[in-house]
Amino acid sequence: MSLNEVKVIAFDADDTLWENENFFRDAEHQFCKVMAEYEAEEEVMKKLFRTEIQNLELYGYGVKAFILSLMETALEISNRKVRPEQIEGIIEIGKSMLMKDVILLDGIVDLLDKLYGKYRLVVATKGDLLDQERKLKKSGLRKYFHHIEIMTHKREENYQELLNHLDIPAEQFFMVGNSLKSDVLPVIDLGGYAAHIPYYTTWLYEQMDPEDIKSDRFFELKQIHDVLDLFEKTKE
Amino acid sequence: MSLNEVKVIAFDADDTLWENENFFRDAEHQFCKVMAEYEAEEEVMKKLFRTEIQNLELYGYGVKAFILSLMETALEISNRKVRPEQIEGIIEIGKSMLMKDVILLDGIVDLLDKLYGKYRLVVATKGDLLDQERKLKKSGLRKYFHHIEIMTHKREENYQELLNHLDIPAEQFFMVGNSLKSDVLPVIDLGGYAAHIPYYTTWLYEQMDPEDIKSDRFFELKQIHDVLDLFEKTKE
Repeated sequence: MSLNEVKVIAFDADDTLWENENFFRDAEHQFCKVMAEYEAEEEVMKKLFRTEIQNLELYGYGVKAFILSLMETALEISNRKVRPEQIEGIIEIGKSMLMKDVILLDGIVDLLDKLYGKYRLVVATKGDLLDQERKLKKSGLRKYFHHIEIMTHKREENYQELLNHLDIPAEQFFMVGNSLKSDVLPVIDLGGYAAHIPYYTTWLYEQMDPEDIKSDRFFELKQIHDVLDLFEKTKE
Repeated sequence: MSLNEVKVIAFDADDTLWENENFFRDAEHQFCKVMAEYEAEEEVMKKLFRTEIQNLELYGYGVKAFILSLMETALEISNRKVRPEQIEGIIEIGKSMLMKDVILLDGIVDLLDKLYGKYRLVVATKGDLLDQERKLKKSGLRKYFHHIEIMTHKREENYQELLNHLDIPAEQFFMVGNSLKSDVLPVIDLGGYAAHIPYYTTWLYEQMDPEDIKSDRFFELKQIHDVLDLFEKTKE
């Protein structure tokens, strides 16, 4: 088994190709300001997180789900006294998130340029269908990708479906992403390869310790360019 | 050109395989009751529709988008006086929509049983990714389908992408759905076949006159079973 077998390189999108999680951090911060009269930031954040996790199965990932959880948290922390202008503020936070420009992470275009034509490149992302398609369009990166997979979850069975669709065994699949829990662990468990490139902020729900993943098919990298080094080293 | 060429039969999901639009009608009605102190039902519905259309590009289709538009409409019609318990009521309307059981339309299982194995069967639906996958799972119909396509829009270019993915020319594609605008017109324009089976209620935005579609590849049917008659007649 070696990286020479790899035929498909799949990229997570949010916080791997472009900035994302920081927009959620900013939005949470704005929300705390809107709610400052009721509770301190730390308490608001704790309640928001609990509401998001409770709603995850029903609402899924993405901005619309997040906004609905903000609404519910606002009702809770205000003890059902939230005011219309605060509700309006939350709707505005959501709309401005959906209208944000896409900011590519450093080195992405160069990496894709160099891998293009040598590997089948794929996007494998969670989130809202419309929102992810919009970001991909705004990003200008669509042309590099053979296939875009927008997944409701990133569990082993979801990756298995993707492998079936791509018609390749796991050992020809290499996943690149910023989440150990979503991008690395399930792929390693299936028998594929995965590289972790941390983003400077990770949603609490996605956090785990890289030490917990023991596999010679797992690569802990520092920056996106290291992916290239990995494959170039293989070919020597 | 004839129906003998058809290799793939694609089905819209909401209001073609299972009930859907009536849940939106019920939810709108509940919303009007919650808002009854501010405006009459007719006026509320008019403003809600305007808000939904304004938000369509940003929010897309589906329950979460609908609920966010209800919130915005509530702010508008209450002249920014909406009360917390009304906001709570709207969140509850949304959650109960997402938790609804799936009610298959009459004749669907029989039809799929008879077509299965003779044609590649596909689902081609708009809406929210998580919600549509959940409904498909609850429906028990997953086993009949070769492929599920959840689309952000049902325009010509989206169907063209689906045809590319299925690797067939338009004349081998037959679409079945309840919306002339989304399920029939773009498919006919591409050179495929389409059957329209009206559901008893259609969202205003999707309404159009069947007389406006002139093509011998278009079939206006009364019930789902007529699809079978159409293909059986072809084979005689």
